[in-house]
Amino acid sequence: MLSSGCCSLSSAVKIGVAGLGVVGSGTLRLLQAHRELIAGRSGRPLLVSAVSARDRQKDRGIDISAVRWFENAEVMAADPELDLVIELIGGSDGVAKAVVEAALAAGKPVVTANKALMAHHGGALARRAEQAGVSLAYEAAVAGGIPIIKGLREGLAANELGCIYGILNGTCNYILSGMRDSGREFAEVLAEAQQLGYAEADPSFDVDGIDSAHKLAILAALCFGCEVDFEAVHVEGIREISSLDIGFAEELGYRIKLLGLARRGNGGLEQRVHPTMVRRDAPIAGIEGVFNAVVAEGDFVGSFMAEGRGAGAGPTASAVVADVIDIARGSRLPTFAVPATELQRLPAVGLSERQGSYYLRLMVLDQPGVIADVAAILRDLSISVEALLQRGRAPGEAVPVVITTHETREADMTAALQRIAALDAVLESPRMVRIEDL
Amino acid sequence: MLSSGCCSLSSAVKIGVAGLGVVGSGTLRLLQAHRELIAGRSGRPLLVSAVSARDRQKDRGIDISAVRWFENAEVMAADPELDLVIELIGGSDGVAKAVVEAALAAGKPVVTANKALMAHHGGALARRAEQAGVSLAYEAAVAGGIPIIKGLREGLAANELGCIYGILNGTCNYILSGMRDSGREFAEVLAEAQQLGYAEADPSFDVDGIDSAHKLAILAALCFGCEVDFEAVHVEGIREISSLDIGFAEELGYRIKLLGLARRGNGGLEQRVHPTMVRRDAPIAGIEGVFNAVVAEGDFVGSFMAEGRGAGAGPTASAVVADVIDIARGSRLPTFAVPATELQRLPAVGLSERQGSYYLRLMVLDQPGVIADVAAILRDLSISVEALLQRGRAPGEAVPVVITTHETREADMTAALQRIAALDAVLESPRMVRIEDL
Repeated sequence: MLSSGCCSLSSAVKIGVAGLGVVGSGTLRLLQAHRELIAGRSGRPLLVSAVSARDRQKDRGIDISAVRWFENAEVMAADPELDLVIELIGGSDGVAKAVVEAALAAGKPVVTANKALMAHHGGALARRAEQAGVSLAYEAAVAGGIPIIKGLREGLAANELGCIYGILNGTCNYILSGMRDSGREFAEVLAEAQQLGYAEADPSFDVDGIDSAHKLAILAALCFGCEVDFEAVHVEGIREISSLDIGFAEELGYRIKLLGLARRGNGGLEQRVHPTMVRRDAPIAGIEGVFNAVVAEGDFVGSFMAEGRGAGAGPTASAVVADVIDIARGSRLPTFAVPATELQRLPAVGLSERQGSYYLRLMVLDQPGVIADVAAILRDLSISVEALLQRGRAPGEAVPVVITTHETREADMTAALQRIAALDAVLESPRMVRIEDL
Repeated sequence: MLSSGCCSLSSAVKIGVAGLGVVGSGTLRLLQAHRELIAGRSGRPLLVSAVSARDRQKDRGIDISAVRWFENAEVMAADPELDLVIELIGGSDGVAKAVVEAALAAGKPVVTANKALMAHHGGALARRAEQAGVSLAYEAAVAGGIPIIKGLREGLAANELGCIYGILNGTCNYILSGMRDSGREFAEVLAEAQQLGYAEADPSFDVDGIDSAHKLAILAALCFGCEVDFEAVHVEGIREISSLDIGFAEELGYRIKLLGLARRGNGGLEQRVHPTMVRRDAPIAGIEGVFNAVVAEGDFVGSFMAEGRGAGAGPTASAVVADVIDIARGSRLPTFAVPATELQRLPAVGLSERQGSYYLRLMVLDQPGVIADVAAILRDLSISVEALLQRGRAPGEAVPVVITTHETREADMTAALQRIAALDAVLESPRMVRIEDL
């Protein structure tokens, strides 16, 4: 027998939607376009019966005249006529958080696409939801249209997961793909992405890795049964990546991707977002443009990868409505797969403990002795060089020197970089990219 | 409130397992290894309380001494103490079918990894399951460990799907990848695959495309809400693929994959399994070795791809146990996403109606006039040539001629092949591979 946490079966599910931006409008359009298909899959009709947004008059290309309008989304969230609230306002605090809390307090299940909210307050909100006995669903918060939350929480439920990683931000992946394809620099491809609507006017959240870190913290909690710990994520963005390094990576058989990676080990949890060199033939290396992908390593299933569109009205609405259908059908799972009261607090494993390979690129004066000085620094820190290439000849001028290392400790690499940067013949800050064997 | 179709919550789910081959033993091992993790995710313990297999004494590396043994799996399936039956015997009829029918008749949910059974009797069994008010789950029947059934049925539930395709057989993909990597012929790589345990002693089900067709028919029913119609699948295997064609494909920027593809259109359903040339940079082209991948095109989500291990004890057990966890948690969805009584009967769209590009490879006598004869045949059938390459010179002897065409009708291509084959200067049956722009 199917059952429901919110309302009797066969009656329509009355939905309140908070936020009618790109995703909110897309969600209404989807619910409208596939009304019958969705009713079939939900076992009952889904009805948008209330909305709240900033501007009632704005033309969104959808008819909301028959839907109750709320100036105050928080008031809407508590409205007794509603069975379910969809939060699409965004932001880690403020109205979005108030709306979700109000809905849960009123015993209503919530569907949200808000990664910042879930990354900062996921644990607390999960506890509220489970106390209230309702679902808090967030498929759309991670990797857009890719049903990765469901895939990990249910599809791979029988596995212990050792590692999860992915390309979690389409803007960054578009920029890195574009730089490689055209040899252009970051700023130029960013400007193009902004023109095409793939990057915001203020791109910091995306290009500085924060958006990826939000998603990674959510994935880590789900995969490892631990508290969402966004603060513990090491975050680096892609502003420092130059076309020179992308070219060298290509030459060495690698691609540079902004990866989010979380792994259990060393008695705790490692979470990091940074540009990463991956072998060109690794499946994740083939993910191009605005696409996202997530790879999970399970002890029985082995390696599983899902890829698709990570943003945009259609894919995000697809994920939002999938969550609503689940709830309408009576599904009610713990937010992070295990009851929120049982989520573990795992100590953060710092990046200084990383063991791995590194790519370094220096700009040095083309004069005798420089390479010897650099090599001596690496030797003194027991860093083993895999390859060292000096490219071009320009006596007395700057030339790039590229070094890849065998496995070494991040702490040693950091020390080496400081000493190398201090050499007179080294003209710019050395660039370093971590290499992962995925 | 969670609910259950089979047994009260918090009590253990008592499971009967029919079949203790590679997958059955793997499933028992998984349930044993992750007992606590699985109990946490199911909300209650899962307990294997009965098994049935051919040989009780066989050493499977698992202790089944405390489990009730049934000589007759059908009798076990009806045992009143069991809450759920897992069928891992295999085969479209016989004992496997009897076991599933007996379990459903006794009102017990069934989990099966049996693609042949679901492809031949999926609709009828779904109706029995839904009449009995229990689940019939088959995640493990398609693409092994990849949670693609869940992904399509629930994750993409808000979408209308236009097309689904995939690499559904790891044996074939291993052989084709191996042929390309090493330049060896089919028979040699098949022998290697058999040695490694990637191919059966009798490989027909795999290499002749039947296994892929089983899985495709299941996917098509799920994606398009139609009756499983295995008989309507056009099936070709990979025995006729030569390393020569794989080399030419590579040269032309393609890879040859055994794809299953189903699409709605022309007032019906197109289902086909055959070697296919896909652009080398298409995501599906990058799936190598024993891996499987499935791509779905949804109208809101866009393109979604999932890849992972398509066979083997661990991945298959992962999928089986995921289904069991779902059922233990109270999930009960229609087998093919819509109630089985509402599955549509879609007319089969025959391959002769295909519109697409083609690759042809002829072995012709290297003498004047042959190319003109071939070109005239193509012209007479209004087939537009994209490229025509004659490779090598060996006057009076056989040389390969490769032709790729622009979009054309399959019926015209079939007619052209007959006429070309009848030319005196054409020495072997022409080889044809369909090109898909995916």
